[in-house]
Amino acid sequence: MRPSGRDLSEMRPVSIETGITKHAEGSCLIKVGDTHVLCTATIDERVPPFIKGSGLGWVTAEYGMLPRSTTSRMRREAAMGKQGGRTVEIQRLIGRALRAGVDRSALGERQITIDCDVIQADGGTRCASITGGWVALKLAVNKLMKARMITSDPLVDPVAAVSCGLYAGQPVLDLDYPEDSEAGVDGNFILTGSKRLIEVQMSAEGATYSREQMNQLLDLAEKGVSELVEIQKAAVNA
Amino acid sequence: MRPSGRDLSEMRPVSIETGITKHAEGSCLIKVGDTHVLCTATIDERVPPFIKGSGLGWVTAEYGMLPRSTTSRMRREAAMGKQGGRTVEIQRLIGRALRAGVDRSALGERQITIDCDVIQADGGTRCASITGGWVALKLAVNKLMKARMITSDPLVDPVAAVSCGLYAGQPVLDLDYPEDSEAGVDGNFILTGSKRLIEVQMSAEGATYSREQMNQLLDLAEKGVSELVEIQKAAVNA
Amino acid sequence: MRPSGRDLSEMRPVSIETGITKHAEGSCLIKVGDTHVLCTATIDERVPPFIKGSGLGWVTAEYGMLPRSTTSRMRREAAMGKQGGRTVEIQRLIGRALRAGVDRSALGERQITIDCDVIQADGGTRCASITGGWVALKLAVNKLMKARMITSDPLVDPVAAVSCGLYAGQPVLDLDYPEDSEAGVDGNFILTGSKRLIEVQMSAEGATYSREQMNQLLDLAEKGVSELVEIQKAAVNA
Amino acid sequence: MRPSGRDLSEMRPVSIETGITKHAEGSCLIKVGDTHVLCTATIDERVPPFIKGSGLGWVTAEYGMLPRSTTSRMRREAAMGKQGGRTVEIQRLIGRALRAGVDRSALGERQITIDCDVIQADGGTRCASITGGWVALKLAVNKLMKARMITSDPLVDPVAAVSCGLYAGQPVLDLDYPEDSEAGVDGNFILTGSKRLIEVQMSAEGATYSREQMNQLLDLAEKGVSELVEIQKAAVNA
Amino acid sequence: MRPSGRDLSEMRPVSIETGITKHAEGSCLIKVGDTHVLCTATIDERVPPFIKGSGLGWVTAEYGMLPRSTTSRMRREAAMGKQGGRTVEIQRLIGRALRAGVDRSALGERQITIDCDVIQADGGTRCASITGGWVALKLAVNKLMKARMITSDPLVDPVAAVSCGLYAGQPVLDLDYPEDSEAGVDGNFILTGSKRLIEVQMSAEGATYSREQMNQLLDLAEKGVSELVEIQKAAVNA
Amino acid sequence: MRPSGRDLSEMRPVSIETGITKHAEGSCLIKVGDTHVLCTATIDERVPPFIKGSGLGWVTAEYGMLPRSTTSRMRREAAMGKQGGRTVEIQRLIGRALRAGVDRSALGERQITIDCDVIQADGGTRCASITGGWVALKLAVNKLMKARMITSDPLVDPVAAVSCGLYAGQPVLDLDYPEDSEAGVDGNFILTGSKRLIEVQMSAEGATYSREQMNQLLDLAEKGVSELVEIQKAAVNA
Repeated sequence: MRPSGRDLSEMRPVSIETGITKHAEGSCLIKVGDTHVLCTATIDERVPPFIKGSGLGWVTAEYGMLPRSTTSRMRREAAMGKQGGRTVEIQRLIGRALRAGVDRSALGERQITIDCDVIQADGGTRCASITGGWVALKLAVNKLMKARMITSDPLVDPVAAVSCGLYAGQPVLDLDYPEDSEAGVDGNFILTGSKRLIEVQMSAEGATYSREQMNQLLDLAEKGVSELVEIQKAAVNA
Repeated sequence: MRPSGRDLSEMRPVSIETGITKHAEGSCLIKVGDTHVLCTATIDERVPPFIKGSGLGWVTAEYGMLPRSTTSRMRREAAMGKQGGRTVEIQRLIGRALRAGVDRSALGERQITIDCDVIQADGGTRCASITGGWVALKLAVNKLMKARMITSDPLVDPVAAVSCGLYAGQPVLDLDYPEDSEAGVDGNFILTGSKRLIEVQMSAEGATYSREQMNQLLDLAEKGVSELVEIQKAAVNA
Repeated sequence: MRPSGRDLSEMRPVSIETGITKHAEGSCLIKVGDTHVLCTATIDERVPPFIKGSGLGWVTAEYGMLPRSTTSRMRREAAMGKQGGRTVEIQRLIGRALRAGVDRSALGERQITIDCDVIQADGGTRCASITGGWVALKLAVNKLMKARMITSDPLVDPVAAVSCGLYAGQPVLDLDYPEDSEAGVDGNFILTGSKRLIEVQMSAEGATYSREQMNQLLDLAEKGVSELVEIQKAAVNA
Repeated sequence: MRPSGRDLSEMRPVSIETGITKHAEGSCLIKVGDTHVLCTATIDERVPPFIKGSGLGWVTAEYGMLPRSTTSRMRREAAMGKQGGRTVEIQRLIGRALRAGVDRSALGERQITIDCDVIQADGGTRCASITGGWVALKLAVNKLMKARMITSDPLVDPVAAVSCGLYAGQPVLDLDYPEDSEAGVDGNFILTGSKRLIEVQMSAEGATYSREQMNQLLDLAEKGVSELVEIQKAAVNA
Repeated sequence: MRPSGRDLSEMRPVSIETGITKHAEGSCLIKVGDTHVLCTATIDERVPPFIKGSGLGWVTAEYGMLPRSTTSRMRREAAMGKQGGRTVEIQRLIGRALRAGVDRSALGERQITIDCDVIQADGGTRCASITGGWVALKLAVNKLMKARMITSDPLVDPVAAVSCGLYAGQPVLDLDYPEDSEAGVDGNFILTGSKRLIEVQMSAEGATYSREQMNQLLDLAEKGVSELVEIQKAAVNA
Repeated sequence: MRPSGRDLSEMRPVSIETGITKHAEGSCLIKVGDTHVLCTATIDERVPPFIKGSGLGWVTAEYGMLPRSTTSRMRREAAMGKQGGRTVEIQRLIGRALRAGVDRSALGERQITIDCDVIQADGGTRCASITGGWVALKLAVNKLMKARMITSDPLVDPVAAVSCGLYAGQPVLDLDYPEDSEAGVDGNFILTGSKRLIEVQMSAEGATYSREQMNQLLDLAEKGVSELVEIQKAAVNA
């Protein structure tokens, strides 16, 4: 029934390749089917003014799409002179999601910036950014721990994200672009490795949904995130 | 236990005054406790390029805060030269929420723009904007129906929104600013009058939550929205 | 002869309601006929660099119109990415006018920002902003005096403004929008309670005028400002 | 008494050299003492949308200062990414002033843009821009008349401007920069050759003035403009 | 003598992998040592206004660097709200260089946009962009030829670029970042496969050079470009 | 053969008038035929952050065109809200060229900003800006030397620039606008008085060139710069 032939609860093939750029403190290329996102982590010993002196760290994120990551070319945001509303919304989500999984006191007063740049898009770029972004973040944190700049791991529970939605009336896991553009209801679910919820964003465009349907999608999301977390762990330990 | 002395499931006093500005096709001033938002609806017979010729209508929203709607003065976005990320995120949410409750085919090929301007802020401005925005939208649609420009009501089921969160470990309804700034987990719940879900945004800042807690907040939200819908109906019929 | 049926030297009904927002140090809603402007005053103990160390205070103003304050919806300046030329010109005028009525030495080295946001427009928004802005300013200053942060009143003489113009060849007081859009010559007159002049801006669009006509308009302006000053005083003392 | 040694009612030496750039339809370099402004007129057969089909012409103006036209270097507005408030205010004034002296019906449906660029500033740049701008405008109009594209002269009465103010308590004509920076009250007076008023802008910064003083400044302005108009006429006929 | 141990006239290892993104009409990832650039070509049947109706095609380019392509993180240009001067200069160069190698009449009235996004930077990103950009362009053109939308090949002679400079007083080929940051004189040389020159940009920062040195660098550039052209041809035919 | 009737190796008449503005530390108006550029130099004792504490000076440049310096009016960059790509490219070139001729250690830790504003354009504005910019720079440096703020001259060898190109197949010196708009190959050549090269930018638009042709243009450039340097010296010593 799904355009890709996948089962309702089947994710696309996922791979995470680390060490993608030599300059970043942590980096990976995450591929969720045909969605490819390059994630890098940059450690900065300076923190934003609002946490100066608090002893707490900060994690923030920026998101971008290469102009031809999409079917038809998008205008380059740098050339347009501003980031679009969708970009702003997504990068705020990524930062908030990753921060929720960080013990900011253990991180210490420093900032880590996660850049997520979409090389090729086929649906689910924000979820791939969060999942890959956590890996880049973890690699950067490991570097700090190895250098004994921090002593207890601020990232005890992985953070991963997956989208689910109602496609042709059925709850499906990990929407690709053809499904995403058809689905009247879809959501992004961000969970930890221990199945705690970090963020649920379930929206309808021209439709509504019931609590029962919401629970079905949450069940799928828990399954998807479990699989993603295994892949994250393997990537970090590779 | 709550700073305001309210019960856990008690909303702030809510009022909606319509006909606030003489120029707009629909308008109201919604007060949810000390949060006051002015909502106006503007009908435009031209539609955005992407729906031209589709026979479908469009609803969009813009959001702003007066500089001194907040405890300390915020910089005016027009003077800064751009809308901040939070503004962009909120106005996209308002537009999406209202559209989900519209039969766009019944509306016909025209656009209605909802402007939500916060006069005084005390938490929950985006929810108040959606709830008040729906009233302004409904009044504008009623004008179109009265003028026989549309024949069947595109707004059969009201749309309203309320925030809920975990405050001091307890699930509470309709967070005000003192609660909002303390809550590690809070969510915005947008429902219809018939309790269908339109959007759930439950996020944690430096914390996580369980599915059980999520369900408790949803129960509160259903209660809150029921009360809001009664007030919306009364306002529209006043 | 006037569209509203008013006498040539008759102002529209004026009301000033204070204490409109709970956050601002001073606030009022001024209504001059169907022109409604919300004015707030914000005290800031920091001053702009160019007066640092001078011992003198500063008063500045910002002006905005809600998108649907006008007959047809105006684009939101924050969304356009800049303040238009008219906005910039008006807010400079408001700031200059209010400063002229302030003993900056008595105010002491602090800044007060007056925000004037037009809720509904029907001509004369800049004059209403100055008249209402002075009330907000006065209320904020009274707060400083009550807290004994300043000892002598820096606002001895009220400042108010009114527009006058040649409508259908006749000098008229307090132009409303239908008159304003017809008048070839109109002016904004800013005076103190003791009839000292602060600013006269009399311009012609596609016309010219004589010194005699200018003097007739000045006579009307003196009359109008006298009435406004009485209303200001009553509002401040309410 | 004046820093320059001039009499109270004495203007600085004024010269207007025409034909300064080979590309413009009209151009001049006006020197009012050490204030030097290059004015060009550009004829455009297309008009702005709001007058299309009206049969009426339009005159608009833009103003700029070269970065080192001032004592210390100003930041280049193009590099800052926007025109400052003062620039916007001035160019709107120039456009409005010149338009008031044009028979827009005789001009016909075309637009003339006056660019005023300050090469060297020493006070009074906006007045010099108006006075020189009128000459550039007149030269462009003469070209249209010579080409028989318009048949009756739309510029029957010259437009010129001069500043006056209270310096050390005395009314003085044509303020230079040292006077301008001291004067608490100063005004810009725009008149026609036949002494009709076009615009009066008399403002006080931290001071007020009486109607009597206003009349004294107007007397001076009439004298100054008479002299300027003679120089304009000579330049145009040269 | 060179930090990398390379001979004076030895290029870094170069590879070009094509078919990197599924959406673009042509794409490749070019690696010149540790400089990695992703190049995509987008065909657009609409052309810019200035060539409409000419029957000629157009090639343009845009350039960007991912924030963490560099040793320390660069601010994202989209977030800063504009492209920096260096970016603008580089993308104009890329577009001009590629256009010089195109028979615009054979291309026909359509536009091809080349996007060059630097994934990892180690010197010579603009030259790598031109060399890789030509491959992406050629692949897109081949697609047009295969579809018989164009009949004669508009890209008869490949275009490639290499940088040369004076490092420690010696002329060297293909500067990497450590050399580039030391070299007082360096140049970018853009040539065709038949050794015709397209663009020479040889600049000195705090130094000068002789015509003899210029000729030595040109000799090196001819050698480098010959090697690059072979790799381009192999990539296109792979 | 040339539209102007000049010989292939004949420059346009060149004049440099110094002391053009009273405020700048150095200034001149350079005329190369009908191309007129006003150049000013501003000394600033503060330096950009990246050289603070280095003991070295800095020279930078900004470039602009008056809107009606061209045949048809260009939009004002300040009004458009940004400098175009061509402007950015040119001002970076001017700054780099002048810096290459400066002994930054002898200049000492201060910055000199060269503003080049085109009053009238007829081809070759960037070369005229460099040639005139050097004169303004030299005059400012002379002022510093006279005030004994620097002791050894940081400008030992003049810097001048000229364009050459292939016009109708022939190498010609100092292209004017009619030639420039026809030439498929043209270059800007920046040399010192002792014929050392500073920058060569030879580009082709829709064409290519041989090394032999490049050498012919370099020969012409050497001739042109020799003549310019004599005029620079005379202007500085006038």
